[in-house]
Amino acid sequence: MSKSMRVIIVGGVAGGMSAATRLRRLDENAEIIVIERGDYVSFANCGLPYYVGGVIPERESLLLQTPQSLRARFALDVRVGHEVTAIDREAQTVTVRDLRTGIDTVEHYDALILATGASSREIYPQVDGAAPVATLRTIDDVDRITAALDGLTGTGRAVVVGGGFIGLEAVENLAHRGLAVTLVQHGAHPLSPLDPEMASVVVDTLRSEDVDLRTRTTVTAIDADGVHLDDGTTLAADLVIDARGVQPAASVAAASGLRLGPTGGIAVDGHQRTSDPRIFAVGDAVEKIDQVSEEPTLVTMAGLANRHGRTIADVIAWESGLLDERPQDATPATGTAIVGVFGLAVAMTGWSEKRLRDAGWPHRVIHAHPVDHAAYYPGAERLTMKLLVDPDTDLILGAQVIGRAGADKRIDVIATAMQAGLTASQLARLELAYAPQYGSAKDPINMLGYIADNHASGTTDSIQWHELDAARDAGASVIDVRSASEYERGGIPGSLNISVDDLRSRIAELPEGELIVHCQVGQRGHTAVRILRQLGRDARNLDGGYLTWRAGTAMREPVLTP
Amino acid sequence: MSKSMRVIIVGGVAGGMSAATRLRRLDENAEIIVIERGDYVSFANCGLPYYVGGVIPERESLLLQTPQSLRARFALDVRVGHEVTAIDREAQTVTVRDLRTGIDTVEHYDALILATGASSREIYPQVDGAAPVATLRTIDDVDRITAALDGLTGTGRAVVVGGGFIGLEAVENLAHRGLAVTLVQHGAHPLSPLDPEMASVVVDTLRSEDVDLRTRTTVTAIDADGVHLDDGTTLAADLVIDARGVQPAASVAAASGLRLGPTGGIAVDGHQRTSDPRIFAVGDAVEKIDQVSEEPTLVTMAGLANRHGRTIADVIAWESGLLDERPQDATPATGTAIVGVFGLAVAMTGWSEKRLRDAGWPHRVIHAHPVDHAAYYPGAERLTMKLLVDPDTDLILGAQVIGRAGADKRIDVIATAMQAGLTASQLARLELAYAPQYGSAKDPINMLGYIADNHASGTTDSIQWHELDAARDAGASVIDVRSASEYERGGIPGSLNISVDDLRSRIAELPEGELIVHCQVGQRGHTAVRILRQLGRDARNLDGGYLTWRAGTAMREPVLTP
Repeated sequence: MSKSMRVIIVGGVAGGMSAATRLRRLDENAEIIVIERGDYVSFANCGLPYYVGGVIPERESLLLQTPQSLRARFALDVRVGHEVTAIDREAQTVTVRDLRTGIDTVEHYDALILATGASSREIYPQVDGAAPVATLRTIDDVDRITAALDGLTGTGRAVVVGGGFIGLEAVENLAHRGLAVTLVQHGAHPLSPLDPEMASVVVDTLRSEDVDLRTRTTVTAIDADGVHLDDGTTLAADLVIDARGVQPAASVAAASGLRLGPTGGIAVDGHQRTSDPRIFAVGDAVEKIDQVSEEPTLVTMAGLANRHGRTIADVIAWESGLLDERPQDATPATGTAIVGVFGLAVAMTGWSEKRLRDAGWPHRVIHAHPVDHAAYYPGAERLTMKLLVDPDTDLILGAQVIGRAGADKRIDVIATAMQAGLTASQLARLELAYAPQYGSAKDPINMLGYIADNHASGTTDSIQWHELDAARDAGASVIDVRSASEYERGGIPGSLNISVDDLRSRIAELPEGELIVHCQVGQRGHTAVRILRQLGRDARNLDGGYLTWRAGTAMREPVLTP
Repeated sequence: MSKSMRVIIVGGVAGGMSAATRLRRLDENAEIIVIERGDYVSFANCGLPYYVGGVIPERESLLLQTPQSLRARFALDVRVGHEVTAIDREAQTVTVRDLRTGIDTVEHYDALILATGASSREIYPQVDGAAPVATLRTIDDVDRITAALDGLTGTGRAVVVGGGFIGLEAVENLAHRGLAVTLVQHGAHPLSPLDPEMASVVVDTLRSEDVDLRTRTTVTAIDADGVHLDDGTTLAADLVIDARGVQPAASVAAASGLRLGPTGGIAVDGHQRTSDPRIFAVGDAVEKIDQVSEEPTLVTMAGLANRHGRTIADVIAWESGLLDERPQDATPATGTAIVGVFGLAVAMTGWSEKRLRDAGWPHRVIHAHPVDHAAYYPGAERLTMKLLVDPDTDLILGAQVIGRAGADKRIDVIATAMQAGLTASQLARLELAYAPQYGSAKDPINMLGYIADNHASGTTDSIQWHELDAARDAGASVIDVRSASEYERGGIPGSLNISVDDLRSRIAELPEGELIVHCQVGQRGHTAVRILRQLGRDARNLDGGYLTWRAGTAMREPVLTP
């Protein structure tokens, strides 16, 4: 408990900067040094794609703080353009290289905080004569990209490799700048954390925005001829964005002997402490604990970095006697996330069906397609919602929500419920704010809860779109309970159309054996299942109705939209 | 347990219709009769003001179901234009009057569900030659109002009496129709569930929309000369909307000897059962249990009515052996609500500071003014937020959120957290979906949690705007830690301006005694308090900063905006 402890923080963006400013508010006397490899601290990394697209017009608005402003308000010693190249844990020192001069100095620490972030797993080599290849993670990156864009004449052509969050933001913003954009995706669809029938909505949007989408494809080389794909195609390009995955930037930590976890991230305890008690770590460089599996996981979100950075400051201050109460351990991570795709909000929390299935985790699946606010009030937009539920505990395992309005609200409510330990059925009981321009008297969240409750009480039984073929092979018949006019606009091949309103009177027309009932979104199907089961028939509802079935089956083939 | 039980439901809108359709899905054999006094069932009562304003252009879109559509899908016997005038509980019968013919019939029930709603407490008498005086609760009301509006020539003048939810929606929509609108409010400000410094934001919006607002005023008479106020003013009017409060429509229930509660609503148990085991009640006619006080309360929200209607159906089906599990008791009500006021969303849940103070309930108050999404992304709108916290348990007692974007999301997340029993500090740990167009890496919700955590841990101490004068009388000095240019644009009279960034170097200039520190919204004030307290000074942060102080003090005088 020194009167003036010396804290060195490596990395000056989300987690590092939250630790620095919180620590100053708790300890006016600490010496706090922030070492940042880049030329900027506390910049708006989530805004970078939108600056490229011109949505954020001023470069200055990305720069939230400067070393000068942080010195004035928080008495921080911020050293940009400096890199920590080594840690001597025994001596409690770091080697700091001034990247302009190349000169190394050695700095002592009482506590060290590693906020080194993530780095691209690999980057395509820049070949002579080839289009510029850039990642999109730093101010330097966007300076390079905007320089390339400013040099273009006519309609430029961009290839984005990797349809994750940053990849999709790059696609949208390059299109917004007027470029013809191709998105190359290794997997079956963009946004691999989504299940295919949900990603299908994103694919439809990309199509309608004239994005050239190539799924189940990889880049084999980038040279003066263009971008070569493994299907033999070569794409002409003026700019290539490499938006493939990232990994924890943990090399300096590893070289100093700090323990890494199974994911490759720095292993920390609930106080963000590494295997060395004087060294903490935070942000994309560290492992989190997954809420569903309670296993180590990687979640690269700024919100977690900020919160965990604050925790580190609290722990250091508590150990210095400046806080009375032991700081609480970090709560598990859910991976709650959202990305905008041409005005469509695509949001998720927890685990997907795919991930649960791969892990052999029992799960119940619920799809719903309600509108974001009362249908009779102008401007209502359809939501595409999915809820994953543990059938034994009724706890929420995950959710996906997509829509042009109100999706961010619904994922946040579900994420809050999930983190608070509410059951899926309890979503029915949430008293949410309703007026016709903001929601419905039965909010979409309540609707998910009502469906979950029907499952938990055995009042309904459903089948998923990807289980339909097997059920039909086993003798089940598909009954389309929509109106005749809906049926005529398109339905499931081989289905029989009897409107739910005619079901009681036309019951004799139904085939023998199991009945798979469906409507457009699942609601009338539920009523039909209730009628049929009370009349002694074996019936299940096709979950999410025709919309979910159509979306899911559309993703079975590679997407090629040249 | 009859094979075909006879269920009579009195009232065919939210709660009654939810009970009817749910019961049919659970019991194909029940005879379900819905008696509705009006000519319409299941109409969009929350949409009525917007139809008056022309925002909802088609009258048909208000009519969600018809007796015919409900017969086809749910085999319901819906009788509109019929009123239940008496209940004979001994005989298990109701007297039903056909309102067109005046003929009474007597109908037997096995179970009776009262969903009679609310009615206006009193209505101004319609005097010869006076402008039409209307409430705004039924299709008949809007037909009457639109007929009056269609007959107007030139700019019409409307007077709305009562600034509750429907009153404000009436004001907005009549203005939208081109009328000059006066709002007469008995209390100090519209929306009495809000605290004054929050209502101040609503008042500013009404002012900017040229609404003539008269607070602390009542109507003494409405006659051919106009609307007479108790301050001697007479307002010319072509239309008067009486939007004063409602009360439970419980007269038939009371006449039959059913127990009413202390609020005047029908008393029910957790299964919505009245004091007669064969009679249930739901919706605005019944009492709820308040989540904060656990006492009976009135909350007139459609969402609760729908959910409780479903519960009644579950209970009836369970008693018939059609559901295995005993339905869960109703959860307490929080009064979560939202209203749109000229594009401003005004949302609340739980108790206000005023209500807590009046009840002598210990409480901690937190104000914050964050923007709804990352400030560097275009279109960010300021939120005005207030959180009420139990200082002993850290549980959330209530919240108010106002803003042009993102307010509905934030109130729903807080309401969910409150209903799930999260503490205020736990809001800091919520992992919410972040991208720059949807939120912030430290979401406004997280910010409230961080402030709450600072209070719980003793890291900060604050003072409310209405406590400032007393503190100054006791010798405290006000230090404005904003920049000089902010200070020049307006501050608290008698305050001393020293920017937070200069505080360390200018510490000697501070007066002796307690220091009340403030900035614009409270954040820099917190940093300043931390500096001052570590330097040995007695300092508190003016909660919510200058914005909250200015809003609160502005509501101390009657509002008159002629």
